[in-house]
Formats: sequence, C-alpha cells, structure tokens
Amino acid sequence: MFKISSLVSAVFLIGSVSVASAWEALPNKAPAPADNPTTAEKVTLGQILYHDPRLSSTGTVSCASCHNTMLGGEDNRPNSMGVNGQTGGRSAPTVWNSAFNTVQFWDGRAASLEEQAAGPVTNPIEMGMKSWDDVVTRLKSIEGYQGLFEKAFGKNSISKDNATKAIAAYERTLITPNSPYDKYVKGNKKALTDQQIKGMEKFAESGCGSCHSGPAFNGPGTYQKFPVISSGFFAAKYKITKDLGREEVTKNSADAHMWKVPTLRNIALTAPYFHNGSVKSLDVAVKMMAKLQMGKELSDQETSDIVAFLNALTGEFPKQKMPVLPGTPGSTFN
Amino acid sequence: MFKISSLVSAVFLIGSVSVASAWEALPNKAPAPADNPTTAEKVTLGQILYHDPRLSSTGTVSCASCHNTMLGGEDNRPNSMGVNGQTGGRSAPTVWNSAFNTVQFWDGRAASLEEQAAGPVTNPIEMGMKSWDDVVTRLKSIEGYQGLFEKAFGKNSISKDNATKAIAAYERTLITPNSPYDKYVKGNKKALTDQQIKGMEKFAESGCGSCHSGPAFNGPGTYQKFPVISSGFFAAKYKITKDLGREEVTKNSADAHMWKVPTLRNIALTAPYFHNGSVKSLDVAVKMMAKLQMGKELSDQETSDIVAFLNALTGEFPKQKMPVLPGTPGSTFN
Repeated sequence: MFKISSLVSAVFLIGSVSVASAWEALPNKAPAPADNPTTAEKVTLGQILYHDPRLSSTGTVSCASCHNTMLGGEDNRPNSMGVNGQTGGRSAPTVWNSAFNTVQFWDGRAASLEEQAAGPVTNPIEMGMKSWDDVVTRLKSIEGYQGLFEKAFGKNSISKDNATKAIAAYERTLITPNSPYDKYVKGNKKALTDQQIKGMEKFAESGCGSCHSGPAFNGPGTYQKFPVISSGFFAAKYKITKDLGREEVTKNSADAHMWKVPTLRNIALTAPYFHNGSVKSLDVAVKMMAKLQMGKELSDQETSDIVAFLNALTGEFPKQKMPVLPGTPGSTFN
Repeated sequence: MFKISSLVSAVFLIGSVSVASAWEALPNKAPAPADNPTTAEKVTLGQILYHDPRLSSTGTVSCASCHNTMLGGEDNRPNSMGVNGQTGGRSAPTVWNSAFNTVQFWDGRAASLEEQAAGPVTNPIEMGMKSWDDVVTRLKSIEGYQGLFEKAFGKNSISKDNATKAIAAYERTLITPNSPYDKYVKGNKKALTDQQIKGMEKFAESGCGSCHSGPAFNGPGTYQKFPVISSGFFAAKYKITKDLGREEVTKNSADAHMWKVPTLRNIALTAPYFHNGSVKSLDVAVKMMAKLQMGKELSDQETSDIVAFLNALTGEFPKQKMPVLPGTPGSTFN
C-alpha cells in the first residue's frame, strides 16, 4: 500500500463494489522532504522557473512545454518535442500528482522531484543546456531572479540545488483532488454514475488494482513488469518490448521491462498511453493492459465500464495565477 | 498623431522637457471594432485558444510560444521557432499593446488583430496546420470547446471567424499602463529619474518622436522607411536591407524597406531588436536608429540617457489567471 505517513488518507470499503478493496481519496497536500519544506516563496519561484523557456538552449522549451499545467500535465504527444524539434523515445508523464510517485521518470532513475527537475534541463534533446553552470549563469543574468531566490533561499542563492528545490516545491502543489471518485469514496454515493460504479467493480475484480492502488493508483510496488505476457497482437503492434525500461538504467537484465507504475489520476486527459505513447485511445489501453498483464480478454462493455470509471479519476485543478517571468534585460542570449 | 477617438488620452506638456512635445499616457483600455465588441466570455475563450498548443500541427506551439504573455510578449529570439524547430526570417513583435497598432505584422499585412490571429496557425513554419478547416475540426473534437464558444458566440459557433475574434478580444486586454513614463506624464514628477528625464529630452530633440509618437510610441504614420540611410557600418553588419519589408506584400517597389513602426512600450524587455532580430542590445539599437534614420552619431552618454528613458516605458502587466484548457478527451491527434 502507498503510504503517506504524515497524512491520514481516507480509506473506505464501498458497499456497492463487491470486491473488498481499500479505496483511498487523494490527499489535498503532498508530503515534502525534510531538506525542502514547502514555502510560499519557493512555490512562487518554482512556478516561474517551471514556466521559463530561457532554461533551454533555444529559449523555447520550459518544463511546462512537455508537462503542461494548463492541460493534463503533459503534452498529448507520443514523444515530447524538445529543442530544435527533437523528439525522444518516451512519452512525457503527467506532472499532476507526481508528488505522490515514489520515484520519478518512467524508469525511476530519479529518487525525488528535486532530482528529476535537474534532468531535462541539460538533456540534449529536451532543453539542451550544456551544463547547470550555464543555467546558473543565465539565471544570474536575468536581474529579477536575484530577488526571487533571495526571498526563497536567502542572499546570493541562485544555484542548481535551489532552482530544483523551488521547482519541486511548486510541483508539490500540483494536486488534483475532489474527482468524482474521491467524492464517492468520501461518502457521496451520487458522485459516480451507475456505469462508473460498475467499472470500478470490474477494475477491482480484474486485478487492475494489484498494481494501480493507493490514492494515486500507482502503488503498492514501485516497479512492475510490463508487459507480463510479451507475445501476441498488442505487444507486437505497439512495439511494447522495444524499450528495456529500468534495465537501461541499472544494466541488470532482471530489470528488463520493469517500469514505474504510472498514476491513473487524470488518465482520461493524458492520451496517448504507455511509455512509448503508442496507444491513442483509453479503450485500447484498457483492453491491452488486461491482455498483456493478466491474460484477460475484456468485452467491449467491460472495457467501456472501466473507461467510465477511469474518467471519474479526473480531479479538480488548482486555480493558479499566471506567473510573470522576470524580464530579459535589454540584451539577449539567443 | 495616433488617435483613439473613443478614449481621451492624457496629453501633457512637460515643463522639464525643453522640446514642446505631446506626451501621451497609455489608455487602460483598447478600442474594439464594431463587429467584435469585447466581452468577458470572448476574453476567457480567447485566452484559452491563445495558450492552446493543439492549434499547431505538432501540438507544441501556441500563440503564446512566440508571443509569451508571461514575459515581454515575445520570445527574446532573433527569429521565432515554430513547429519542428523551424525558424522564419523575422522577429516576433510583442503582443502587449498590439491593440494600439493600426496594422499588424512587421509589414502590416493584416489590418486587424482578428486578421492577424488567423495567419500563424496555418503558416507552415509557425503553427503548421494544413487549413483552418482542420483547426475547426480539431477544436470540435475537444469537448470543452463547444461550451466555451457557446458562451461567447452562441450555439454551434466553433469557426475560424469566432476563434480569431476571441483571440483578438483577449489580446485587447493585454495592455501595460502605469509605466514610470505614464505616471510622469500624468503629473508625478518623481516617477522618472533625472537621467530618464534627460533621456526623454534627448529622445524628443533627436527626432525619435517623429516616428515613435502617440501613447504607444508607434505613430503618427503607420509605415516608415527603415533604414533611411542604407549605407554604412550598421546596415551592413546587421543585414538591415536584406528584407524588403512591405514590398514583399504589395510587390510595389515604392514600398521597399517600409515597415510598420513598432511600439516602444516595454522595449527594454523585448531584445533582440528590429525586424530581423539582429541587434542584441538596446544601446546598439538606439545608436543605430539615430545613425540610420537621422544620420546622427549619439555619444555613449546620450545613448545611455535615451536607454534609461526607454526603460521607463516598461508598464504594469495585468494580473492573469492561468487558463485551464479543455482536456484532450481519451484519444489524441498526434
């Protein structure tokens, strides 16, 4: 079970779902690590950095370009497009509720949001900066950042460490509670339609919850093998086994095709699906998961019930102010 | 003189500036055309469309990508980067206060904000959509747009005409009043520093105001020749005459090197400068304008005074809510 020790998650046994499952509502707040407590000043700075395209070599790509905070927290593309129109091999995971992931990136190669935030900035096909030293130099050249970092971290504090801490602090505010599902498990029996309740039951019954459980539907384990059954139509058509997943990081063949279990929160908004973004529709994704993970054939009706349930995982997006980025002062680096 | 008939512009004669000039503060509101009165519903929809990257072929480029509403209204690049990393030949003009331009685009090829908004979407190197029919089809496929258009324009109203009207209505709210200059001309003598007042005087004395006058510093005439003096160091170094400007539209050689006079509002934030974005710093831009337009050599001191004055044209950016775009529903077009 996914545990947030400092928060009491609402755990309910829903009478109308026949399989006894622990259904948990999403907490309104995400836990922060001891060395990076969330403060309003960090969140303000982090929101600005997150949306600043000047953190990329071309000045065109910000964190938000691929993890869009005005949409489902990603870009609805199979693979994201970084600087100079380059694309990588994996689909951008959503930033919404990423604070509830135990590890970050599809292959879990970052242990925290702070560590994750450092990665894309210097990835040559993502944001393309040569080094974090260059990023820091650039941030220092933008006058307004001095004061913003000072408020968040004290004097002369522009650094990689603080920039990534601020971005992570901001990301911890990107939580989408109060989905119809959350309202339902908190006791509002009218929050789900009959079909959604049927889908919820089918979801549990089919075993989806053995990997997708907990408040963010991304636990209990951190990693799972995907696909479990690697033969057949779906795996071939969507080239599911081409990417080795976690083995690419650990170089350990036992980690072949092991992936971080992605959250199902707001899944209806984040097509296309899977690590390679190969599947355009949620219906196909659901059928495929049943087949490749559990060897089950779902009927069209069962699939559409589960999809109805997954649509109930779309939460309320927090109201945000549009950040005003500190201006590029009278000369430019592009 | 740039005239806004429905608004009374504040016109002052500033005692401390020796050249008698009509200095005008920026109005808080922009005039709207009779066939597109500004409404809250249009502005809401327009803000969403303006920030929606799904209006581009790759799903990565929105109006805001090149005309960034979190920054100086453009992208601080010599040339903008459109879909698939392509770049064009001209520098993105700022969207801030573009409502006060008599024509749009560097070459004035659009007569209104509505007409302008239609252009980049189907430009192959900007947003790359094949046709507006395709754009409308895509907007119709995104469920949430139906209701947003309905509120703004009535039932079943998703169309090119209404999309561009909404974007234009939003752009008319992107006004940056209350710059130090505005406060000064409204009577607050302390709003400008001594150097800025000296620069203001030098600006008038040097003749800058013969093209850059009116509240947005982009009148009185719509077009001006640039460069007036096409020989010499600056024109050669920065390849100023390579682009024919308005002649490219009219095919009339009398329009060679004629350009829409760009606003100087927020100019300190919009480096690099000129139609080709060839000049990185405002200091060089000011020296170059004096030389190429009036045959004048400005001293370093005069230049720095004028730059100080231009910095006083940075206004207050309106507080905006971050738009929440209607979600891509369970399948994707990329």
